[in-house]
Amino acid sequence: MTAASPAARERLYLFDTTLRDGAQTNGVDFTLADKLNVIGLLNRLGVDYVEAGYPGANPTDTQLFAQKRPSAARVTAFGMTKRAGRSVSNDPGVAALLAAEADAICFVAKASAFQVRVALETTEEENLASIRESVAAAVAAGREALVDCEHFFDGFKENPDFALACAEAAYQAGARWVVLCDTNGGTLPHEVEAIVARVTARVPGSHVGIHAHNDTEQAVANSLAAVRAGARQIQGTLNGLGERCGNANLCSLIPTLLLKGDYAERFETGVSREALAEIGVVSRTLDEMLNRSPDRHAPYVGESAFATKAGIHASAILKDPATYEHVPPEAVGNQRRVLVSDQAGRSNVLAELERLGVPVDRADPRLARLLDEVKEREALGYAYEAADASFALLARRMLHSVPDFFTVERFSVKVERRYNAKGEMTTVAEAIVKVRVGDEVFISAAEGNGPVNALDVALRKDLGKYQPYIAGLRLTDYRVRILNGGTEAVTRVLVESTDESGARWTTVGVSPNIIDASFEALLDSITWQLLRSGAPG
Amino acid sequence: MTAASPAARERLYLFDTTLRDGAQTNGVDFTLADKLNVIGLLNRLGVDYVEAGYPGANPTDTQLFAQKRPSAARVTAFGMTKRAGRSVSNDPGVAALLAAEADAICFVAKASAFQVRVALETTEEENLASIRESVAAAVAAGREALVDCEHFFDGFKENPDFALACAEAAYQAGARWVVLCDTNGGTLPHEVEAIVARVTARVPGSHVGIHAHNDTEQAVANSLAAVRAGARQIQGTLNGLGERCGNANLCSLIPTLLLKGDYAERFETGVSREALAEIGVVSRTLDEMLNRSPDRHAPYVGESAFATKAGIHASAILKDPATYEHVPPEAVGNQRRVLVSDQAGRSNVLAELERLGVPVDRADPRLARLLDEVKEREALGYAYEAADASFALLARRMLHSVPDFFTVERFSVKVERRYNAKGEMTTVAEAIVKVRVGDEVFISAAEGNGPVNALDVALRKDLGKYQPYIAGLRLTDYRVRILNGGTEAVTRVLVESTDESGARWTTVGVSPNIIDASFEALLDSITWQLLRSGAPG
Repeated sequence: MTAASPAARERLYLFDTTLRDGAQTNGVDFTLADKLNVIGLLNRLGVDYVEAGYPGANPTDTQLFAQKRPSAARVTAFGMTKRAGRSVSNDPGVAALLAAEADAICFVAKASAFQVRVALETTEEENLASIRESVAAAVAAGREALVDCEHFFDGFKENPDFALACAEAAYQAGARWVVLCDTNGGTLPHEVEAIVARVTARVPGSHVGIHAHNDTEQAVANSLAAVRAGARQIQGTLNGLGERCGNANLCSLIPTLLLKGDYAERFETGVSREALAEIGVVSRTLDEMLNRSPDRHAPYVGESAFATKAGIHASAILKDPATYEHVPPEAVGNQRRVLVSDQAGRSNVLAELERLGVPVDRADPRLARLLDEVKEREALGYAYEAADASFALLARRMLHSVPDFFTVERFSVKVERRYNAKGEMTTVAEAIVKVRVGDEVFISAAEGNGPVNALDVALRKDLGKYQPYIAGLRLTDYRVRILNGGTEAVTRVLVESTDESGARWTTVGVSPNIIDASFEALLDSITWQLLRSGAPG
Repeated sequence: MTAASPAARERLYLFDTTLRDGAQTNGVDFTLADKLNVIGLLNRLGVDYVEAGYPGANPTDTQLFAQKRPSAARVTAFGMTKRAGRSVSNDPGVAALLAAEADAICFVAKASAFQVRVALETTEEENLASIRESVAAAVAAGREALVDCEHFFDGFKENPDFALACAEAAYQAGARWVVLCDTNGGTLPHEVEAIVARVTARVPGSHVGIHAHNDTEQAVANSLAAVRAGARQIQGTLNGLGERCGNANLCSLIPTLLLKGDYAERFETGVSREALAEIGVVSRTLDEMLNRSPDRHAPYVGESAFATKAGIHASAILKDPATYEHVPPEAVGNQRRVLVSDQAGRSNVLAELERLGVPVDRADPRLARLLDEVKEREALGYAYEAADASFALLARRMLHSVPDFFTVERFSVKVERRYNAKGEMTTVAEAIVKVRVGDEVFISAAEGNGPVNALDVALRKDLGKYQPYIAGLRLTDYRVRILNGGTEAVTRVLVESTDESGARWTTVGVSPNIIDASFEALLDSITWQLLRSGAPG
């Protein structure tokens, strides 16, 4: 591939199947409202096609296609080609597709002689006829037609003539796109490139698409290999959702297509540079909707995608970010993070302080003390790279000051397992906390579903004048690890918190006593919330 | 590439850097004990090299290399080449590497003229001299030498002569391996293939390695592209740990190399088919050690890698698994997940019972009930794969019987933080446990450094006639994870125990209350110890 002037760039089409193949993900269920939200996200991004579901297969999808949905991307209905042994006009599946309020219809058809024989139990001729007649019916009904050639690559390896005949049948019947599917996900990039080249010798590449799965962790590479061999449509999903190991991840593919090497020079897509800078938000919004923890290591969009831990790397990054960044994080709406840990140097600490908004003078001699303190505390079990809010508090305490908003004078927690009045074995947890806020003293008690929960509820029950500042605070994760084993074991607790604005922060506590460690992390979380929300000291 | 007879297969070397580059992962901290465990896992798998750390960079790694570690894989120490402006014999970093108890030394050296200028602030000549002299010093000290050519691909694009000069300098000075590093992770597979081919025209491919990062989600594809261009060593990590988006994932690469297409035909590695079938266990053991949730969508080893949700796929799978599986799940120690009564699940349970010494008849109808029970309890949060002793107890209870050695009638735990008589803030934890052993009742109280420790000590203080059997029991690890998040969150506790014989077992407890969950795991541990030491029922 060689460089081309912008005017001569070839158009590459993006087809999103988050709502269809992505809905096959173990643990993922979209409501109708979810689906409409995702259609919105995909339009914000600028993909060309949204495969929104399978009308007739379930009530949600049937309802979705019952009315026209506003979308710049072409809303696509997925379904099977007509069954063998019946006419297309007499096939309820095809009828449901034709009745669906969709811009395009994507038929799935087997392109493997083995599959036709074993799974469909029909003949190759019947299979070809189903493709031709179904596509013709969609075109006659004024719809754009696509054909997903299922098992195309495995089918090609076993019987190339039949696989090619399926692709040609679809194209000749009028399909806008003939999509080559690596349904089982086992095909390797060099195979994809060679096989797609064989197809584009028969069907114009401008009508060929690729649908890759991640079963060898190469769905992205397979998609790009197909493009190199001439394919001009890529099917994928947000965050790589999809059956088994997922589909090709559009959140990785889109930045590569727009930012990297000869793809950016040779192709254009419907995604603008401005939309690209929102891809991180799109990715996280989907995770939030599905209540999945974002993959912090995800390429481009992950929290750690531009994070550096090693001290030698950090000092180079501060000299020139291009030394350790393959693309600028801002281009994909992400940010540089320099992690603080016992492997970190001064540069890591400086960069992290800047990100956290803690003002610091590079020449301040207390910086060296802070670095020593971090190393000493990490040797005790603290993990500041995972606990940004605790690090920010530590730094503010050493470099500036943090108000003593309140002090805890004592607390006690009790857990008891015993028979209750009905003779059932039951466990109760309760906590009492005594807090001083200025001249006032508050004693609060609470029950909880465990000692830490009881302590958390009691602690946040009444902080006097600070209560409004912490009203929206919520614990979202709690992790415990015992360090060093044996008799000198200490417990490290990480607490993740959030508030109504969606801000998220993590704090750490370390102690031989899990309750003490949890309490320390809870206190840091509340103090951080008071500090960041501007509570008066 | 064409097929080769087994005798003519080329050897491909695997270099694991989980303990070095993997230690750069955001949120990952290995203790010395963790590192020794991982060395064990990697030997079980059969990799050729284990890069265990960076002696001198932090106390853990210095301690690790202070003595010879038993390992079939070559234990490798990582560090920098000598600094510019000083002799190799006068460089403390190189001295630490030469003093390290390691089989091999992997030097990292810049191979980019830009990096040499901007990050190192030295000259190209100095950089080449550092490579030559450092390698020569390692070879003279009787160590195998490797050179990680940092930023090789970016450096090559900008100044191919200098990048190649670095690679050649390393090879000519006697390095066994010249490793081409895509340090920033932004190079694409077609670029890797073209550039590696340029290197193998100058340095024999049998001395060239590839070190890829996953910043475009193509670390696996890049590694394979390098092999296609002649490289014969792959560097990667378990579960793709590593800085930012991670390194090439050996848990994806190894199955592909052993099972797929022409890689399996053309190459051999140190990993046997038997070891391959344990790769899933290796992957999960590492996650468990680091207290990370396994990625259920991970290729080959993920819980969902062979799971089918779509009805049309499931019926085809039942006709012939090859219709929807690219490799047999058993080959990588995984299992098909379609139906509850599937045979793979049954054989896994049988194999595990055999391993744990629980006698069972293959035709016993209660096996199916046990399988259902395991699935139901795992859905509640139990993790029997990690908790062998709890699984063995569950199986024995359902297939045979387990004596009620003792019953706990009630317990209570109290944790209190308050000022002591000297005016110091102090935290005390104490527990009371009432146990019935036959006709005798024992009430024991104990203090501990935390509530679980207090409960454990009180529980094991006096079990009457069973006391001699549990005298050597000791808790060695304790892990907690919150599952499901939100209001329905439950806590899962894993407890690892050991006794004087060195036997080691893990038990699990699940409850909304962490104390209840911990208590359940403690009870299982004691019961298991009584059972295995032949205590009378």
